[in-house]
Amino acid sequence: MQISFYNPTRLVFGKGKLKELGSYAKEYGKKALIVYGGGSIKKNGVFDSAVASLKDAGIEFVECGGIEPNPKIDSVRRGIELVRSNNCDLIIAIGGGSAMDASKVIGAGALYDGDPWNMIFHGQDNVYIPTACMPIITVPTLAATGSEMNPGAVISNSETKEKSFVQTDALFPKVALVDPTLTLSVPKNQTGYGVCDIIVHLTESYFNGVDGTPIQDEFALTTIKNCMKYGLRAYKDGADLEAREQVQWSSILALNGFVNCGTNGAFPVHMIEHTVSGIYDITHAAGLAIINPAWMRFTITHGGNLDKFVSFSSYLFDVKSDGDKVKTALAGVDKYEAFLKEIGCPIRFSELSIDDSKFAEIADTTLKVIHDENGNLPARPALSKADIVAILNSAK
Amino acid sequence: MQISFYNPTRLVFGKGKLKELGSYAKEYGKKALIVYGGGSIKKNGVFDSAVASLKDAGIEFVECGGIEPNPKIDSVRRGIELVRSNNCDLIIAIGGGSAMDASKVIGAGALYDGDPWNMIFHGQDNVYIPTACMPIITVPTLAATGSEMNPGAVISNSETKEKSFVQTDALFPKVALVDPTLTLSVPKNQTGYGVCDIIVHLTESYFNGVDGTPIQDEFALTTIKNCMKYGLRAYKDGADLEAREQVQWSSILALNGFVNCGTNGAFPVHMIEHTVSGIYDITHAAGLAIINPAWMRFTITHGGNLDKFVSFSSYLFDVKSDGDKVKTALAGVDKYEAFLKEIGCPIRFSELSIDDSKFAEIADTTLKVIHDENGNLPARPALSKADIVAILNSAK
Repeated sequence: MQISFYNPTRLVFGKGKLKELGSYAKEYGKKALIVYGGGSIKKNGVFDSAVASLKDAGIEFVECGGIEPNPKIDSVRRGIELVRSNNCDLIIAIGGGSAMDASKVIGAGALYDGDPWNMIFHGQDNVYIPTACMPIITVPTLAATGSEMNPGAVISNSETKEKSFVQTDALFPKVALVDPTLTLSVPKNQTGYGVCDIIVHLTESYFNGVDGTPIQDEFALTTIKNCMKYGLRAYKDGADLEAREQVQWSSILALNGFVNCGTNGAFPVHMIEHTVSGIYDITHAAGLAIINPAWMRFTITHGGNLDKFVSFSSYLFDVKSDGDKVKTALAGVDKYEAFLKEIGCPIRFSELSIDDSKFAEIADTTLKVIHDENGNLPARPALSKADIVAILNSAK
Repeated sequence: MQISFYNPTRLVFGKGKLKELGSYAKEYGKKALIVYGGGSIKKNGVFDSAVASLKDAGIEFVECGGIEPNPKIDSVRRGIELVRSNNCDLIIAIGGGSAMDASKVIGAGALYDGDPWNMIFHGQDNVYIPTACMPIITVPTLAATGSEMNPGAVISNSETKEKSFVQTDALFPKVALVDPTLTLSVPKNQTGYGVCDIIVHLTESYFNGVDGTPIQDEFALTTIKNCMKYGLRAYKDGADLEAREQVQWSSILALNGFVNCGTNGAFPVHMIEHTVSGIYDITHAAGLAIINPAWMRFTITHGGNLDKFVSFSSYLFDVKSDGDKVKTALAGVDKYEAFLKEIGCPIRFSELSIDDSKFAEIADTTLKVIHDENGNLPARPALSKADIVAILNSAK
């Protein structure tokens, strides 16, 4: 087992924590760029509460709203201009993964002379890996990406139809201020998508990691189990604060690097989905819900780690093993897919009116972004172009 | 659930990592104080390997050996003098919890004009909480304390017979360089003690924390389960590297703040044991092995959280519940105590030739160090002087 772990983000989690935003912000700056999405925070009072706390602490602010669900590099460029023209010294992201991811690339881009798209890994020869970033405070209003406490960001380019990522130590937020009451008003569909996103973050490392990590494996299954239990409750009753808390805690755990540290797993489902939503601009988790079970079935029947799939089936879905590992594993995937359906996620491309016309292109683009020395997508086992197309076809 | 979590230590874990010591050290300084214990690292080659790596990186060093098993404030004072007289700019702790804990207080003490005993919380009016510390790299040679990746230190004062702690953000090591091969030569008794120490770190938060933390509770039980499984293997066959790895990983998890974050649990067994080993200078984990089951039995029969004890019994020891929670809980404690015996730990004070003559003094001293607004020891439920004496008496 080889572990390399580092996460210096300070996590402050709990009901009512939004009121403390100003007291944390003043540790890092005097003038904040507030990055947010479609403006729901202006309707539900979150923006006003945040601003009141900042004013109490003597922090000025400039707004950068309108960050798209799949945040665009153009929005990042706009944010960088706002930082520079207003001399902001701090970024506060209030929103979902989009606002948080955009903030990271704005924060690094503002300290970089080149174009921020150079930071996003899209198969270019000279990637710019940022080594510095403005201080960032994340205030998630959605439990999904785990972006609040990690150094990753996913950005799309609407001109080139590419969607990819940057991940490096400089991008860790200083503080993740997580107030689960902010998620009480998240609508049903986004609640379900968030739960799906969290689960897939956990299954990626669980299934694609190395062997010999028994504690991490159980941590992953425990987190998935609780995310499903409380996720279903939050989906059915959005006002259930205990459920919202546990889902948000799962979201943080799923992608802050701790649960899966040392597993060194690949993220093939994410890689394929990024390409799909780069082309079709669909909700990330909707794409994951379609691709993840399809990837699982393919992997189970093509040399995947059957023991892990059997544990997944038995621990989470109480599937009794009759000795046939493939059958046991597939039965678990069926139940997992049924759960995704129950929380409102699509499970076939046809539900999103996506046909098979671009499946080959999706495979090519994904492999352009990331491939191993044999030209395959890193996964366990690695996936060829034909494999990726087969997975996509099985989810038509 | 209210979480406040911060841990900026970089964890580098794996077989052979000791060779990378120099490359990490040169990021932080040019002249290191190497802090170590009784000298076993000079006999088993660890010191030579560490020094070779430092030399390759151009790092000079000064030695501060002879740190005692319960590290004394006098040794800390000696370390501070060595730092000052040699202009060291970095501390490297190679050893168990003693060397690592002493290093933290040396590192903070070297930047402080007063006496370092002022930092150790022993009931004094004006505690000095350090806000700065020299950079520290920890290289544990024992899986036990978790000190490698946390900001706590326990120091003893042989003049006053006090033993207590300091814990504050400034004391986080920069890097925890954890090479499980360094623990292959740990003798049987210390291996067993280490396993006991790890388990007690986990049971303290699990039993004394708040309710409503289902994920953390399962993380704790999972870690205990694996620590017991691999701990027994390591105890029986010290050369079993996989077992050593998993025990060391458990040790880190048990006390780096992540598994128990948001549980806000008290550490009553540790508090009592610190007083005991302050007076008798016994091995910390030997004291824990005696006090922990005694504390559990007392708590089970005096208003403790029975549901958690039942889960402990059923998950870890496969005790079948017949509906009588107290009986189920006590049966688990019996099996836990049998396990401690199996890994060579004492389970009664008489095994260490400690009689009851100082039990009242132990209770008084413990309550002097820490007590709630009613004068009781923080725990779930809180413990009066009479309660502490009753626990100690039950372990005679």
